[in-house]
Amino acid sequence: MATAAAYAVGVGPGDPELLTRKGERILRGADVILAPVARIGEPSVALDAVRELLDPERQEIITHLFPMTADPGRLAESWQGAADLIAQRVRAGKQVAFITIGDPLLYSTSIYLLRTLGEAHPDIPVEIVPGISSINTAAAAAAIPLAESEERVAIIPATAGMDKIMEALVRNETVVLLKVKPVYGELLDLLQQSGRLGNTVFVERAGSPRQKILRGAEQLAGHAPDYLSLMIVSSPHPA
Amino acid sequence: MATAAAYAVGVGPGDPELLTRKGERILRGADVILAPVARIGEPSVALDAVRELLDPERQEIITHLFPMTADPGRLAESWQGAADLIAQRVRAGKQVAFITIGDPLLYSTSIYLLRTLGEAHPDIPVEIVPGISSINTAAAAAAIPLAESEERVAIIPATAGMDKIMEALVRNETVVLLKVKPVYGELLDLLQQSGRLGNTVFVERAGSPRQKILRGAEQLAGHAPDYLSLMIVSSPHPA
Repeated sequence: MATAAAYAVGVGPGDPELLTRKGERILRGADVILAPVARIGEPSVALDAVRELLDPERQEIITHLFPMTADPGRLAESWQGAADLIAQRVRAGKQVAFITIGDPLLYSTSIYLLRTLGEAHPDIPVEIVPGISSINTAAAAAAIPLAESEERVAIIPATAGMDKIMEALVRNETVVLLKVKPVYGELLDLLQQSGRLGNTVFVERAGSPRQKILRGAEQLAGHAPDYLSLMIVSSPHPA
Repeated sequence: MATAAAYAVGVGPGDPELLTRKGERILRGADVILAPVARIGEPSVALDAVRELLDPERQEIITHLFPMTADPGRLAESWQGAADLIAQRVRAGKQVAFITIGDPLLYSTSIYLLRTLGEAHPDIPVEIVPGISSINTAAAAAAIPLAESEERVAIIPATAGMDKIMEALVRNETVVLLKVKPVYGELLDLLQQSGRLGNTVFVERAGSPRQKILRGAEQLAGHAPDYLSLMIVSSPHPA
């Protein structure tokens, strides 16, 4: 890391060991770490995942509020603030790493931040370091293949609508449903009616000490899911 | 790693730095490393990615032939041979890591090997360690978001058929096409006709020193793709 630059680092699902070696090198070498928080005073999941690698004596560690709001003005302001902060420090010769849970380009705050940074400060060099997503982590934890041979995989936030989920179930061998919490009951009904509940695995907080893996109608029906939950719906394979 | 066990370790796309810290710990601590090769005498891409971490004086490094054949009998025999080899060494008290490029559960030889091992030797404890897939690596290299908000992503081996690809393009904001080499010309025609070629990024050998990123009709049309190539087809986003 000779020249000053910004790095978007995916830290993986939360387990510090699921960070890549490259992510570790960049975070240890960075002058500034920028971590997102959804609410003031709340811990940053991404920061907690890498805290053991950081040195608060030497590194500037900033938590920046990316509010969970539908107000586009407030969101844009928050991204702009973070982009300015990054650009200012890179121009001062510093290595700046902004971290997010999972992968920086798959349903991540990083996408908006990268876009704002590119638009507002196109001179700032940026490198993106991929991270292990919750999908690969959940599949590994549950030992469920995501796809083999010529199979198709669809990834859908469950909040996108039951019609879209139904379509995806028909057309793909594996469907990964993210953000299942807000529509959990509806989802279980849909999976039951389409005969896929028996091929569904539910994974909560994949890769964390609080990880839960549930299978089958009975386990799934009795559960109140967490915010960080997903489902992998497989097709039955010939033995 | 107290008790003997088998580990399926995804080593990532080929860049040794894109291995996880957990993968590194397991590979350094393993007594036996089993790496797949597609042809006798050929190097193992997975083994090359982690070779700098291994100690051939202390560790047994085995390359096992998983032939690229459609003959189910020959394939089953190869998986059975690997599963037996792993089970035998774990029973002798050894830590055995079998490695594959990318993620062990996403279009990987590991899936078949894990299945055979589970069927033939259900007593052998197995842990799966997720790896960075070529998809996340390609997206990071090309700085292309895979999905945000409620967008859908489809992953399809391009050899699955043009009709399935067309369907996926209609129903998903992002479509990732794998194994594009055998149908490259046909694919370009389809993307051109459906007006999506302008939103297509082609990535070859993502995360390796020989990585190539191509965009736009002209660059794509003039290229002869490599075996390890994929395309990310995005939807145009409102600015």
